Amino acid sequence: MQISDCPERAIMEHVTSKWGVMALHVLSDGGSWRFSALRRELENVVSEKMLTQTLRTLERDGFVHRDVKPVIPPHVEYALTPLGKGAANHLVALAHWIEANQPEISQAQQRYDSP
Amino acid sequence: MQISDCPERAIMEHVTSKWGVMALHVLSDGGSWRFSALRRELENVVSEKMLTQTLRTLERDGFVHRDVKPVIPPHVEYALTPLGKGAANHLVALAHWIEANQPEISQAQQRYDSP
Repeated sequence: MQISDCPERAIMEHVTSKWGVMALHVLSDGGSWRFSALRRELENVVSEKMLTQTLRTLERDGFVHRDVKPVIPPHVEYALTPLGKGAANHLVALAHWIEANQPEISQAQQRYDSP
Repeated sequence: MQISDCPERAIMEHVTSKWGVMALHVLSDGGSWRFSALRRELENVVSEKMLTQTLRTLERDGFVHRDVKPVIPPHVEYALTPLGKGAANHLVALAHWIEANQPEISQAQQRYDSP
């Protein structure tokens, strides 16, 4: 992969951005999420502005579908597209791998930190 | 995965950090890399300080082995550990997936951007 001026590299950054990872992870349950519920699931640690920006980037890449429900008052739901599901699957697999290897990683950290 | 105060989450951030992704990707060729060669492979876009910090974090997690060669002048080589190989495999798989789906992603971006 090239470093600069490369569309693949930009997409990698969208998918692996802090909130990109987390949003894709939550949406990977296959459901439709309202903005407020999604933000709550992220423990409100992410600002509204940052989550909006993250979802917009993922929508532009074709990973997230934004569905405006024609109700009063209108509300918006977010869900993964099949393409987004493909990207999210890799992040979920990585998260599972980290979870499974957490003891070994933790041991390495303790060895590194011990004088 | 929990959002805050969670060791798995911290490791996910190390692995998916901008230069973490790139360093693991380069090292995933299985070879040993001198610092300067690794930095050159990253097109010198990353500062020495940032690359040092990235490699130190990955070394602490047990993903990267830092080998100080007892020669004069001494030099240092970096390589993936088996554990690091496991993490890197997921990133390489994601990169391949992005590459394979780049046309579809690009089309989605064009649709999004068209008025």
